[in-house]
Amino acid sequence: MSIGVGVIGYGYWGPNIVRNFMETPGLAVRAISDLSEQRRGLAAMRCPGAKVTADYKELLKDSSIDAIVVATPVGSHYGLASEALKAGKHVLVEKPMTASVEQARRLVDEAASAKRVLMVDHTFVYTSAVRKIKELIAAGTLGELYYYDSVRVNLGLFQHDVNVIWDLAPHDASIVEYLIDQQVACVSCLAMSHVPNQPENVGYITMMFNSPIIVHLHVNWLAPVKIRQTLIGGSARMIVYDDMELSEKVKIYDRGVELASSTDRIHELRIGYRSGDMHAPKIELTEALHVEAAHFKECMEHGKTPITDGQAGLRVVQMLEAASHSIKHRGRLIDVATMQPT
Amino acid sequence: MSIGVGVIGYGYWGPNIVRNFMETPGLAVRAISDLSEQRRGLAAMRCPGAKVTADYKELLKDSSIDAIVVATPVGSHYGLASEALKAGKHVLVEKPMTASVEQARRLVDEAASAKRVLMVDHTFVYTSAVRKIKELIAAGTLGELYYYDSVRVNLGLFQHDVNVIWDLAPHDASIVEYLIDQQVACVSCLAMSHVPNQPENVGYITMMFNSPIIVHLHVNWLAPVKIRQTLIGGSARMIVYDDMELSEKVKIYDRGVELASSTDRIHELRIGYRSGDMHAPKIELTEALHVEAAHFKECMEHGKTPITDGQAGLRVVQMLEAASHSIKHRGRLIDVATMQPT
Amino acid sequence: MSIGVGVIGYGYWGPNIVRNFMETPGLAVRAISDLSEQRRGLAAMRCPGAKVTADYKELLKDSSIDAIVVATPVGSHYGLASEALKAGKHVLVEKPMTASVEQARRLVDEAASAKRVLMVDHTFVYTSAVRKIKELIAAGTLGELYYYDSVRVNLGLFQHDVNVIWDLAPHDASIVEYLIDQQVACVSCLAMSHVPNQPENVGYITMMFNSPIIVHLHVNWLAPVKIRQTLIGGSARMIVYDDMELSEKVKIYDRGVELASSTDRIHELRIGYRSGDMHAPKIELTEALHVEAAHFKECMEHGKTPITDGQAGLRVVQMLEAASHSIKHRGRLIDVATMQPT
Amino acid sequence: MSIGVGVIGYGYWGPNIVRNFMETPGLAVRAISDLSEQRRGLAAMRCPGAKVTADYKELLKDSSIDAIVVATPVGSHYGLASEALKAGKHVLVEKPMTASVEQARRLVDEAASAKRVLMVDHTFVYTSAVRKIKELIAAGTLGELYYYDSVRVNLGLFQHDVNVIWDLAPHDASIVEYLIDQQVACVSCLAMSHVPNQPENVGYITMMFNSPIIVHLHVNWLAPVKIRQTLIGGSARMIVYDDMELSEKVKIYDRGVELASSTDRIHELRIGYRSGDMHAPKIELTEALHVEAAHFKECMEHGKTPITDGQAGLRVVQMLEAASHSIKHRGRLIDVATMQPT
Repeated sequence: MSIGVGVIGYGYWGPNIVRNFMETPGLAVRAISDLSEQRRGLAAMRCPGAKVTADYKELLKDSSIDAIVVATPVGSHYGLASEALKAGKHVLVEKPMTASVEQARRLVDEAASAKRVLMVDHTFVYTSAVRKIKELIAAGTLGELYYYDSVRVNLGLFQHDVNVIWDLAPHDASIVEYLIDQQVACVSCLAMSHVPNQPENVGYITMMFNSPIIVHLHVNWLAPVKIRQTLIGGSARMIVYDDMELSEKVKIYDRGVELASSTDRIHELRIGYRSGDMHAPKIELTEALHVEAAHFKECMEHGKTPITDGQAGLRVVQMLEAASHSIKHRGRLIDVATMQPT
Repeated sequence: MSIGVGVIGYGYWGPNIVRNFMETPGLAVRAISDLSEQRRGLAAMRCPGAKVTADYKELLKDSSIDAIVVATPVGSHYGLASEALKAGKHVLVEKPMTASVEQARRLVDEAASAKRVLMVDHTFVYTSAVRKIKELIAAGTLGELYYYDSVRVNLGLFQHDVNVIWDLAPHDASIVEYLIDQQVACVSCLAMSHVPNQPENVGYITMMFNSPIIVHLHVNWLAPVKIRQTLIGGSARMIVYDDMELSEKVKIYDRGVELASSTDRIHELRIGYRSGDMHAPKIELTEALHVEAAHFKECMEHGKTPITDGQAGLRVVQMLEAASHSIKHRGRLIDVATMQPT
Repeated sequence: MSIGVGVIGYGYWGPNIVRNFMETPGLAVRAISDLSEQRRGLAAMRCPGAKVTADYKELLKDSSIDAIVVATPVGSHYGLASEALKAGKHVLVEKPMTASVEQARRLVDEAASAKRVLMVDHTFVYTSAVRKIKELIAAGTLGELYYYDSVRVNLGLFQHDVNVIWDLAPHDASIVEYLIDQQVACVSCLAMSHVPNQPENVGYITMMFNSPIIVHLHVNWLAPVKIRQTLIGGSARMIVYDDMELSEKVKIYDRGVELASSTDRIHELRIGYRSGDMHAPKIELTEALHVEAAHFKECMEHGKTPITDGQAGLRVVQMLEAASHSIKHRGRLIDVATMQPT
Repeated sequence: MSIGVGVIGYGYWGPNIVRNFMETPGLAVRAISDLSEQRRGLAAMRCPGAKVTADYKELLKDSSIDAIVVATPVGSHYGLASEALKAGKHVLVEKPMTASVEQARRLVDEAASAKRVLMVDHTFVYTSAVRKIKELIAAGTLGELYYYDSVRVNLGLFQHDVNVIWDLAPHDASIVEYLIDQQVACVSCLAMSHVPNQPENVGYITMMFNSPIIVHLHVNWLAPVKIRQTLIGGSARMIVYDDMELSEKVKIYDRGVELASSTDRIHELRIGYRSGDMHAPKIELTEALHVEAAHFKECMEHGKTPITDGQAGLRVVQMLEAASHSIKHRGRLIDVATMQPT
């Protein structure tokens, strides 16, 4: 017997969700809701087996539906996910999970009380490239982590409800959250709006940890070219992860610094360079949402905790909220625990 | 009659200076000084016509020498340049001009009193690529400037006396100083050292102006690959300037945002996208130092103010010193005028 | 009233045809046939409105079907297209149109007699990139054409029925046929098989014209990387057309040779170089098959001759057959008119 | 005691020879000759220790000169090298070694009689990249060799005395000669001139062996961009060698075809694909001429046979002469042994 799924929101991302859920054995998309008549028409055409409605409440009431996917603007995430949990459904929420840390905390609690799966659609965590990098870091291939630097820019759609930080940075924040086994300590962010009365369209976020790791994200809606390039530095090896590369998305460089202890004087510590081979492991071409759909199903069936569970969703929202506070404090480092300037 | 030149410092950069000055009609390299015997040997071999000495003071005393090039570590710039001015010589100083704003101010004053040319070796300002970009900005091709974003990273030599900010950022700071006709208002910087007892090897600098321009520099000595990529965004056009490209270093994108005024409601301002052609103007392959040497000569002969004069050098040092203060204040924006957190 | 379409063959390319025809207003996919039960299952799932059958003859008999698309292996093209014309249908055939020049000639005649549209699916001719290049050549932007050089290689699927020439070269042959307004005079081809009992997997084709244009194609199923790069040289300008580029697929270089007549001696003709700007015009992202479907419909409705009509299909088959003859004659140039070595 | 060297010809390549020979311990450049007064002035300035003369015969007579480098246009190679051998000198000749196979054979014989070292300046053979590829092939890393495909094109200087085949193809011919331990059996070449009364400026050469290896070279003086890309295919692995890459010049792909024997029917031989990792070994940045100069010295001192000896030079000239014959026979395969069409 298949697990019944209802999808709320059939805008930009919803169709990808629906298509992948339809092709996952054991999952059945039973209903789709959207406020737009045009989008509902599209959904009906492409997904003839599903009920299509303007009223998401029909999905919550439908007893053939076990799980709800929330694929709506971020402002409505908490309300819809919360209602779905109350209706006894498992929930998969688009990133970012909620619009505030407070909402995120509440949602995590509500899912725990309801004993339902709460999963966040941190899509990149399910790509073969990011999983390969996680594997390399976990195996110690990079040595001690030094930095994570990401550039995610393009001539992007202006959002009216959120700024570029809340639109693009969740991708990197979720990758950082997944790759680095440490809690972000504080966050700095400077951003700028170039269109009157519109949210910030370019932003720079820096994250600090209780260790010498430094994370930096550059997000920009007004760039002339699309760049998706991440540098990850470690004491033993370094990675260039370029998501625009068709093949060789992940390149591992056997390069780094070698410290030779000097017998005579401490300030004459010699620093040598290691400049060795480059290796690009084969990256499977599996679609991330396909892997993610199967994982969601497995978690629901076997009561497993998702890799991108509510806690992961909360940590990402913490980074974003700290960044928002930092913008208001003109770039000062914000302590993630207190949301106050350090 | 040629202008006699003496070069103090024959380390990494000195040989390039000497070679280009030798090939400039009207300039004659008469003497070279360096503390290292090995470097003096090299100088003597490659520049048989010049006197080679360990004592820079000989250059200052030599009446056949009209101009001194200071190509030594930054800590000695002010002292040597100051002495040279006092000895009645014109001076060209390596970047950054001095190790502090105070020194920079004094040097500018001393040059004015001595009525001698004080020029700073902001090499990139003399490249065909940067001059082409200046030309485009001056002609209004880019429209209103939005941002300047530079990534300057590689597996670089660790410096023991300066950090990565003072080593790599002067390049971008001097380009910014040249391209943008506005005074930097404040500077934020976060940086990290990953090698015990060594200066910071990765840093992020953000500069704000009294206008919506935002400048951001990423400098890194510990990157797996060499990147020299700058994005320059404007309201009318955008530029990708990639110094690692052999040809097409400067690409101009006819892309941007178009605002369509909406008759009904202000918050429904429509934002359209313009995505047009790309154009890569021919960039001459002339060596920057060659152009710079000729410009130095012309300034000395005709009493002209160099494009990269002491004021330009001062402005670059201001950016760097503000960045240093910001590091100490954990990334807070530092007012360049007061060097205090804003 | 829509034009009814029947599609014979739902293998690799058929689904793309069906999807684009379904989305073209005025066209209705009424039936699909395929010999494989598995492919029929897929067709039924994705195209619920169409009849799905194993017997293509049902499509020919169906009076609601006005046009037949033949998307089967090349060996069956002529037979199926011919039957369809006899049944009074318009026909769109996959490339290459037929397996021999003789078949191609007959098909062209049969379409003329039947007064039906015969169109060949030379897909690249309908891409924005190739249409832009045609426009540039037609406008004289390139000057006199010198050469067309294409590299089309990758780790491709081995075909058992055709060699790499008949599999990959039709793409370039159809582009050449479209761009160059001259009949190919003769063709040379050398090829090699590296897998026992299998067709040639690497091949080099050279085409000569009654003018100094030279065309060269490199096709390879066993390359480590995917390359789709074409150089087009003209007396005034040159083009690099790289189909793997996401943007800037077509780059126009203002480079070339300039002949300066010398007053003294003719053999001292001076050759100068012009090395100017590069320009990458905006290329629309429209899917080629979408444009092609609309064009097919227009030709049927208004009795127009398709851009890629039977004559174009014939010319491409002539190039391929001449190449096959050349392989047998160890690379000798084959006269396309006589199919004999020159 | 140093080996004395005389260099005949100080044009485009001569200065590189002189600079590298000067920096090789054990070699002393004693004299340079050139017909142009301007070039002699340059030589005198840059190489103050050497005698500079218009008359190469002075070099042959000079008893302090043990070896002669011939860096003149190809038409004079045989005559000068032959004279030098007669004068008892060792000889290093620019590529191609001579203008004909007959001259090449004679020169090899003369060097043998004179018991002097005859070496050809096949520079690429001394690059770290080509030596690494040789090492990989010799170690069996690539498996059985399938093909060698090179594209060497740019907006190059028109030569008046030789065509693009004799100008650019010697580079690839010498690499092929070095990498592949088999004699070329026959050569086909088609080429075209686009400038009246000038030699061919674009050419395609195919080489066949007594095995299924196929070699193909594309050389072009009139290309809009500079390309130096070679694909090398083997049964086990494949290489992309891109000389324009600053790092990662050699990429090894663990990709290929796997044949699975089928139990039932031979024509259903299954062909599987292996698509694995990519590996870019570190390539040293040593200048090829530096390695070559040291090798020349070692051969002279210890009576060793150079890697690029007269026989290697002869084999390259054979390929070029066969290509020239093929052009005259409109692309027919020319048997290298008989220089007749096959």
